Amino acid sequence: MLSIDLNADIGEAFGNYRIPNDHLLLDYISSANIACGFHAGDPQIMQETVAAAKYKGVAIGAHPGLPDLQGFGRREIKIAASEAYQLIVYQIGALYGFIKASGAKLHHVKPHGALYNMAARDAVLAEAIAQAVYDFDKSLTIYGLAGSEMITAAKKKGLKTAAEVFADRTYQDNGLLTPRTEQNALITDEKKAIDQVILLVKNQQVATINDRLIPIQAETLCLHSDNLNAFLFAQYIVNRLKEEGVSIQAPYT
Amino acid sequence: MLSIDLNADIGEAFGNYRIPNDHLLLDYISSANIACGFHAGDPQIMQETVAAAKYKGVAIGAHPGLPDLQGFGRREIKIAASEAYQLIVYQIGALYGFIKASGAKLHHVKPHGALYNMAARDAVLAEAIAQAVYDFDKSLTIYGLAGSEMITAAKKKGLKTAAEVFADRTYQDNGLLTPRTEQNALITDEKKAIDQVILLVKNQQVATINDRLIPIQAETLCLHSDNLNAFLFAQYIVNRLKEEGVSIQAPYT
Amino acid sequence: MLSIDLNADIGEAFGNYRIPNDHLLLDYISSANIACGFHAGDPQIMQETVAAAKYKGVAIGAHPGLPDLQGFGRREIKIAASEAYQLIVYQIGALYGFIKASGAKLHHVKPHGALYNMAARDAVLAEAIAQAVYDFDKSLTIYGLAGSEMITAAKKKGLKTAAEVFADRTYQDNGLLTPRTEQNALITDEKKAIDQVILLVKNQQVATINDRLIPIQAETLCLHSDNLNAFLFAQYIVNRLKEEGVSIQAPYT
Amino acid sequence: MLSIDLNADIGEAFGNYRIPNDHLLLDYISSANIACGFHAGDPQIMQETVAAAKYKGVAIGAHPGLPDLQGFGRREIKIAASEAYQLIVYQIGALYGFIKASGAKLHHVKPHGALYNMAARDAVLAEAIAQAVYDFDKSLTIYGLAGSEMITAAKKKGLKTAAEVFADRTYQDNGLLTPRTEQNALITDEKKAIDQVILLVKNQQVATINDRLIPIQAETLCLHSDNLNAFLFAQYIVNRLKEEGVSIQAPYT
Repeated sequence: MLSIDLNADIGEAFGNYRIPNDHLLLDYISSANIACGFHAGDPQIMQETVAAAKYKGVAIGAHPGLPDLQGFGRREIKIAASEAYQLIVYQIGALYGFIKASGAKLHHVKPHGALYNMAARDAVLAEAIAQAVYDFDKSLTIYGLAGSEMITAAKKKGLKTAAEVFADRTYQDNGLLTPRTEQNALITDEKKAIDQVILLVKNQQVATINDRLIPIQAETLCLHSDNLNAFLFAQYIVNRLKEEGVSIQAPYT
Repeated sequence: MLSIDLNADIGEAFGNYRIPNDHLLLDYISSANIACGFHAGDPQIMQETVAAAKYKGVAIGAHPGLPDLQGFGRREIKIAASEAYQLIVYQIGALYGFIKASGAKLHHVKPHGALYNMAARDAVLAEAIAQAVYDFDKSLTIYGLAGSEMITAAKKKGLKTAAEVFADRTYQDNGLLTPRTEQNALITDEKKAIDQVILLVKNQQVATINDRLIPIQAETLCLHSDNLNAFLFAQYIVNRLKEEGVSIQAPYT
Repeated sequence: MLSIDLNADIGEAFGNYRIPNDHLLLDYISSANIACGFHAGDPQIMQETVAAAKYKGVAIGAHPGLPDLQGFGRREIKIAASEAYQLIVYQIGALYGFIKASGAKLHHVKPHGALYNMAARDAVLAEAIAQAVYDFDKSLTIYGLAGSEMITAAKKKGLKTAAEVFADRTYQDNGLLTPRTEQNALITDEKKAIDQVILLVKNQQVATINDRLIPIQAETLCLHSDNLNAFLFAQYIVNRLKEEGVSIQAPYT
Repeated sequence: MLSIDLNADIGEAFGNYRIPNDHLLLDYISSANIACGFHAGDPQIMQETVAAAKYKGVAIGAHPGLPDLQGFGRREIKIAASEAYQLIVYQIGALYGFIKASGAKLHHVKPHGALYNMAARDAVLAEAIAQAVYDFDKSLTIYGLAGSEMITAAKKKGLKTAAEVFADRTYQDNGLLTPRTEQNALITDEKKAIDQVILLVKNQQVATINDRLIPIQAETLCLHSDNLNAFLFAQYIVNRLKEEGVSIQAPYT
């Protein structure tokens, strides 16, 4: 039976700044990436989010980001590979504190935002991140952009990986995402987005911006968590995947 | 054979702000309290300090503080018990990241600065801290002020404890430290400080500011790490303890 | 003709965490207290908020808080008087940057949250804050709790003051607010809240929790900005004040 | 009579992390660049440093940096031009708070670290920074790398400028600094460094790494402040400049 993982970034509130509905998504996803306090999240949010994910039986992942709360971890910071290693270990450990204290289980690591993008194209940074995850716990799975240096580095280290694809982003002929700076980077038509997902999941293929069908590894699909439309889209995609006979399941579980 | 633990706060640098000699103290102490990034320390410092402590065979402790880098964790912040729990779990976890990644072992937890003082006198806060340590790993030892609520709460939870005493602070008749706001709070005469230590370790007694001899539990002695005199004092005290036939050893090791 | 100032805390967003509707309140208030980056607000939010307040012709105030973004400036931090002075000067200056760069005018200073409460009861802290405002610009007005040490200290320094009252808080017989820890601290009935405002503004009196009518100075009324009800309440109160023949105007303008 | 400005970064301590001797340099320099709290400096340090610079009669400049205390503002962060504008205005304003409160005078602005380097080569960023300075106070002088986009943008805006040169850095044939990543980027021989300064100041020339003599504008010389050697070098250079009949003076004073 075909299966796919649905992941979402959860727990990206901070202090008084709440994101009231992001926990609702836990009913639809199979794995949650929980912010660790650098780009979002704080100790209280992390405790609550780990508890909620554990209660819902969703696979728990660390979602470490760059130390930039104001920029939400989306601004690239030129860090050394050693610094990448250190901030990954720190943030995995911090989240693991709440996981261990609550008797839950750490399942995966997905770098956030600019760190995710930098690790997708920079082999040295990707290797440092893979090493950090490996040193902390070599049974963890790394989530990274399908076809990226992050996935390559994690595989080379012997880590389990999950190649991530997107419903609302277009792809170039080389299999990588169309940069957000391009006009046609986003898929705003919901039907098109769902069709892309079905093609990704069932055929491991995507139609590029030049209408070419290319192969792509699709092991986990990223859902958004920050607005109501995202929530509705999650419901649609879950229903449609069920209709297509695709089960929703975290990788290696 | 008599023994005492010598502990010091290590790794309290941050970013470009280095404390060049604090690692030297690792040759004299039996347990190191490593800052976790809230009042001092950053991921790089933490990685380096864990590695140095492991190399020297010193017992490694987490040294969590209040989130106040500018105030070095020395300004009291009115936090709820739940917030104390959360910041302890977060910081223990973050340090544990480096401990686990480097194959070292976490031995104890000692709250820092204002958090240490608040936990010494506030039973509710102390209970929350003890619960956090217990939930993370109930085999850990809590270091706290001798005779404090922190020690009481940790014992009640079933945790191992180490009652901490000071060489350079005077004691009141009730067994607690003379507040720093008092004229006679500090012992600046080195000979007097060493004599106090010997009395504490060998007789489990201290002479109060009113010249009364009172009993006090002395399981770990706090050494400073932030100046050259502190380093010289550590050498003196180690030599003197050896002369007196006292071994230097972390508790429960 | 009777007049009252309506003030609200505006610009308390941070980075990605927006408070979408707080600018709407600018249509109803006569003075805005703009967060300065310590408890909330960041350089982008501050620039946008100063521009919006200037456009709406609302008197602009600095709203400095304690350095505690996670706690939203609501957790008391034991700071020295010199530290209070310094963080007030820093934050007024930072906001003044945007005010000066945009050709607007700084009108007042209102401490935020825990700093507001600490300055209400601690004469030494209040004096340091008043000194900071005075040193920066002695023509500024300080907003503080009616009957508080903050108002006393500001007057002693020769600064203009605006005594602040609340629509949704009850008062004790001594003229101070009922602490939030008490059951009857809040007025949740909207009609009662509006009646309290009218009595405050027209008679400079308030009915205490023991149903005694006491005199109270009411020069500025604090409106909330963080939810839709607050916005609706602002509309009601503005309409009612107009019906009562009370004009809405910032003090000393 | 020939003159040159000697500038140094002062006040780069933070909280408990002091830089004990940096104020000593105030006896040798003519202008001080004071950190504003983002890459270094805090309200207390800023107040003390402004007071010291005022007392010594040294021209006071704002030294705004990227929001990265851990990286000391030396790690490039990809910020938008609008974000550069905002963080410059915020930081100038914050420092101006202490300048205004103490009756001192703001003389110049020198971006710090990575922001300095980014503004040297990125015309759009440089324009945003120049606009921020202009909007705050168009009588200020901008310090920037000689021959850089920062100087070009400031001149275009009509601001006064001071082209900065270095004693301990080598130059390429195009007049720009040899990148630090190159072997021969630094001049470690003190005599060579002083000779380079004299040539820069007296002839407005520099000998490049290829031993070519090229023209370069030298209006202000950057001295370091973070170690004892830097302090000794400052003494040497001041003496040598006096011997050569060169006066030391801040620009436009």
